[in-house]
Amino acid sequence: MGLHRVLEPAGVLPQAARRLDASPVIGPDEVRIRVERLNLDAASFRQLWEKHGGDGERVRAEVLEIVAARGKMQNPVTGSGGMLIGTVEEVGRRSPLGLRPGDRVATLVSLTLTPLAIVDGLAGWDGRSEQVPCDGYAVLFARSIAAVLPADLHPELSLAVLDVCGAPALTARVVGRYVADRAREGDARPVSVAVVGGAGKSGSLSLTAARRAGATRTVGVVPVAAERDALEAAGLADVVALADARDPVSLAAAVTSALGAPADVTVVCVDVPGCEHGAVLATADGGTVVFFSMATSFAAAALGAEGLAADVTMLVGNGYVPGHAELALELLRAEPGVRRLFEARLAAD
Amino acid sequence: MGLHRVLEPAGVLPQAARRLDASPVIGPDEVRIRVERLNLDAASFRQLWEKHGGDGERVRAEVLEIVAARGKMQNPVTGSGGMLIGTVEEVGRRSPLGLRPGDRVATLVSLTLTPLAIVDGLAGWDGRSEQVPCDGYAVLFARSIAAVLPADLHPELSLAVLDVCGAPALTARVVGRYVADRAREGDARPVSVAVVGGAGKSGSLSLTAARRAGATRTVGVVPVAAERDALEAAGLADVVALADARDPVSLAAAVTSALGAPADVTVVCVDVPGCEHGAVLATADGGTVVFFSMATSFAAAALGAEGLAADVTMLVGNGYVPGHAELALELLRAEPGVRRLFEARLAAD
Repeated sequence: MGLHRVLEPAGVLPQAARRLDASPVIGPDEVRIRVERLNLDAASFRQLWEKHGGDGERVRAEVLEIVAARGKMQNPVTGSGGMLIGTVEEVGRRSPLGLRPGDRVATLVSLTLTPLAIVDGLAGWDGRSEQVPCDGYAVLFARSIAAVLPADLHPELSLAVLDVCGAPALTARVVGRYVADRAREGDARPVSVAVVGGAGKSGSLSLTAARRAGATRTVGVVPVAAERDALEAAGLADVVALADARDPVSLAAAVTSALGAPADVTVVCVDVPGCEHGAVLATADGGTVVFFSMATSFAAAALGAEGLAADVTMLVGNGYVPGHAELALELLRAEPGVRRLFEARLAAD
Repeated sequence: MGLHRVLEPAGVLPQAARRLDASPVIGPDEVRIRVERLNLDAASFRQLWEKHGGDGERVRAEVLEIVAARGKMQNPVTGSGGMLIGTVEEVGRRSPLGLRPGDRVATLVSLTLTPLAIVDGLAGWDGRSEQVPCDGYAVLFARSIAAVLPADLHPELSLAVLDVCGAPALTARVVGRYVADRAREGDARPVSVAVVGGAGKSGSLSLTAARRAGATRTVGVVPVAAERDALEAAGLADVVALADARDPVSLAAAVTSALGAPADVTVVCVDVPGCEHGAVLATADGGTVVFFSMATSFAAAALGAEGLAADVTMLVGNGYVPGHAELALELLRAEPGVRRLFEARLAAD
């Protein structure tokens, strides 16, 4: 778990640490990666971008400062990090991860707990995108997860998919549970799913995963017409609806009107604060909300559902579900609409 | 939902509002309560208490200031509120709540969304306890929930139970699901439950609810010897373990050693920050963590589970589950150990 890398405070896990030891000298169960690219968490990048009024130089300077001070990339405001790709440089003799020197990998654990040192001053990055070219070192622990990048996909594309691969996997599990329960109970009602932020990375994968898990009615909610057109063209949802997810009443109205009723499962994939109440209102009694946005407020979700007397199950989106990387890459390969959305997003970055 | 009571910002639900209209003039679907007592959320009271270094006068002054400024009692740091008891004074002709003037009630929706005006300057409160004698007015909306106080229990006791009644109800539901799934699958393994903060209000009720829902092995985790002795005397858990919930490694070790393995269901009922990682580590693969503490950090939970590659389901503790008030009062009546813990706590306040 990397406890020996925690410098302060003592006794916490690396993710909760203020500062990690990012020494490149690895222990027997560790792996050192030569980093080539960081992928900042969307909520983190957005916070930095807004704080510095879109000044890329200052965004870059703050990322360097954070990593130097903390020994890891963890945004002090959002608490979130991101992930990285690189090449395995050295493998401790007791590492259980099955990696070999020369493997090109993406880390599937957050940067918030990954010891990291940057050696090039991020000279190749203009501070204007979540994708950060970077030379440096990172360390994986025994209980980390890394995926060897597939040969048939561009590494940036794989990274973008792997970055959000927990969302489709958990969506598939939750939707599959409703489908199985209804089948067992002889309940013929269709299982309906709303994905808030359906045109984004985690959103488009989640829509696809929901459909494959047996959802018979799906709606993708997007904030602007351009995303609506893109998601409609991709053909991933039965209905695409326009709504501001921060406006509870209009989000609930959009979902309810698209599905004919509130959703059985609502998946929140937008990285802006204030979507909790709308998601709860958009969900049927007995339904489930899955929060994947790092901008989610625990208190807003808990008190919002209580205040609305809403009998909904609310899940903290766990980025780890067994088999998540393989599932997400398979969805991308099998569904041209998902691939087009990802490629368009990468081209625009 | 009380949208018409939101003064700013426009369009949000009352819980998210900075300021509510606390006018005592009610609309046709509203109910006005004459308040007699507020019960501050534990996390909120603790924050105020620590901020003011235990100076009750300053705690009282800040509560008055918050309510005057916001038209509701919502701690700006923790985001949490609490609940109240009082007597129904006026019922709008279209209110669906079934209340009548003169009913003595507890509100089961949070103070964070309840319009409130204090008229006595909290003269009867010394600022040193969560229980706040208070004269004033509060307003319930059509979709609020209020329970008429039972005649056989002291109102303070009922209030303390109703304040946390979501926890045992959700615990019972989650544990019952594991029990039913295992029975259906012919899986003879016992269902094990860990309750962190097992001697507290929500903790003792959750332990009792877990056992009645079919948990066959339970552990209550407490931070100090006095709570251990009290919980052991109450007989609500198979094992009582001492551990600091903020220390992930020791919490996991305590639970695993008490149960012989990590827990199927871990319920977090302590109102201190930093318990997310320990709860995840204490839970078996395929298990569920239910977070009831308002001090829970969404990001710490999400990233912690991912960072530990832990296949656990994490629930945001929803304070509303149908039938929650009746269940909690029934547990208190049926289980002398629970009642003793509650009465001792009230006596100490």
